[in-house]
Amino acid sequence: MRRYRIDLSYDGSAFFGFQVQPNQASVQASIELVLCRLNKDRKVKLVGCGRTDTGVHAKHFVAHFEVHWEEDLEKIRFKLNKMLPNTIAIHHLSTCPDDFHARFSAKKRSYQYYIHQEKNPFKTGYSYHFPYPLNLEKMNQAAQFLIGKHDFSSFSKTRTQVSNNFCEVHEAFWKKENEQYVFTIGANRFLRNMVRAIVGTLLLVGEEKIDPQDLLKIIAAKNRQEAAFSVPPQGLFLWKVHY
Amino acid sequence: MRRYRIDLSYDGSAFFGFQVQPNQASVQASIELVLCRLNKDRKVKLVGCGRTDTGVHAKHFVAHFEVHWEEDLEKIRFKLNKMLPNTIAIHHLSTCPDDFHARFSAKKRSYQYYIHQEKNPFKTGYSYHFPYPLNLEKMNQAAQFLIGKHDFSSFSKTRTQVSNNFCEVHEAFWKKENEQYVFTIGANRFLRNMVRAIVGTLLLVGEEKIDPQDLLKIIAAKNRQEAAFSVPPQGLFLWKVHY
Repeated sequence: MRRYRIDLSYDGSAFFGFQVQPNQASVQASIELVLCRLNKDRKVKLVGCGRTDTGVHAKHFVAHFEVHWEEDLEKIRFKLNKMLPNTIAIHHLSTCPDDFHARFSAKKRSYQYYIHQEKNPFKTGYSYHFPYPLNLEKMNQAAQFLIGKHDFSSFSKTRTQVSNNFCEVHEAFWKKENEQYVFTIGANRFLRNMVRAIVGTLLLVGEEKIDPQDLLKIIAAKNRQEAAFSVPPQGLFLWKVHY
Repeated sequence: MRRYRIDLSYDGSAFFGFQVQPNQASVQASIELVLCRLNKDRKVKLVGCGRTDTGVHAKHFVAHFEVHWEEDLEKIRFKLNKMLPNTIAIHHLSTCPDDFHARFSAKKRSYQYYIHQEKNPFKTGYSYHFPYPLNLEKMNQAAQFLIGKHDFSSFSKTRTQVSNNFCEVHEAFWKKENEQYVFTIGANRFLRNMVRAIVGTLLLVGEEKIDPQDLLKIIAAKNRQEAAFSVPPQGLFLWKVHY
């Protein structure tokens, strides 16, 4: 048995998140099924770099698993892509050290959130249609308050099973790109629903309904009710996982 | 009653083409339903610049209709977009002369066809995944033979109701753009299935299974069986209608 790493991407709209869910389509279950077929029908356990919520996309996702394969890896990758649905693509398949762990070895993850303002049928699945004026400068002022190590309870789904809500945010900024607003955030870890709750709150700043400085109060409150609604999942991409 | 023109776009994967079909979703039926609601429930007939086949997208499509409206046009356009599904967007609404006809006044139409070579879940709906090597130069040599006025029967669905199969092609070329092959073709008119049959044939040239010069023989044959299979609709966009 050897340990293998895959770097992949998937369209989240086809799945109830990455992780196996009873009676629901998941990325993990789809890939485990194909790995099992390519492993003489012996079960293979896939370990992902994290979870993504229902409907959230992954531009870059990493997972590991253990199998015994003799064949050329490029050939196996070709087979995997042929057998997997259109909504999942394996970009790299490689062997990795036995102590490589897709989740615990990851040092940093980054997400991007896309917003378009003019109705566009071709962006619908990959961007949030938000037609109201936005103040980019104020959104960026507010985003700066996220940087550093903070308790992000105000932006976390309540009743999750994590031991603490501290995350260290390395970068958080907006830019305008081809008529879309794009928010990038990088951190050592993320809480459930965190990026979408942050984006919803920054949109309130962008609409000038709250001030950039209000972010400080919202973070300090450690209370989900202080932050804004979560924006929908189709605009969110897990963008890059760093090791 | 005044005549109005709309410039719109739609995601073809949601529809059985532009034109009303019995018991099927069509772009025309979706828009006529909304226009009727905004016309005191009196029926409105929408005339499009052409038909598109099931699954084919329109980046730019033009239609006209007649109603009696008093309200500000920007407000009506806003309402139309709110009432229409995400898959249809009205980009412009304007009055037009009574002799403007979306179909007969159009002088030129252009289409684009997109191909990607590496599996990509985010391109799946808007591009054809074709993983085999392509010779761009030869595809462009072959495309040049399409230019001019020819009988395009070899690239038309058989048993259509048009009186003749002559089309005047103004431009036809391939380019590589962000890891995609993009084919552009502009003509005064197009036959049913024509662009997809042409692209299928040019891919045979790109794969070096036939020579660029073979295009001349295929055109001259005026026989659909001489050309190649049609590529799937999700890569095809009606790109621009010129008046």
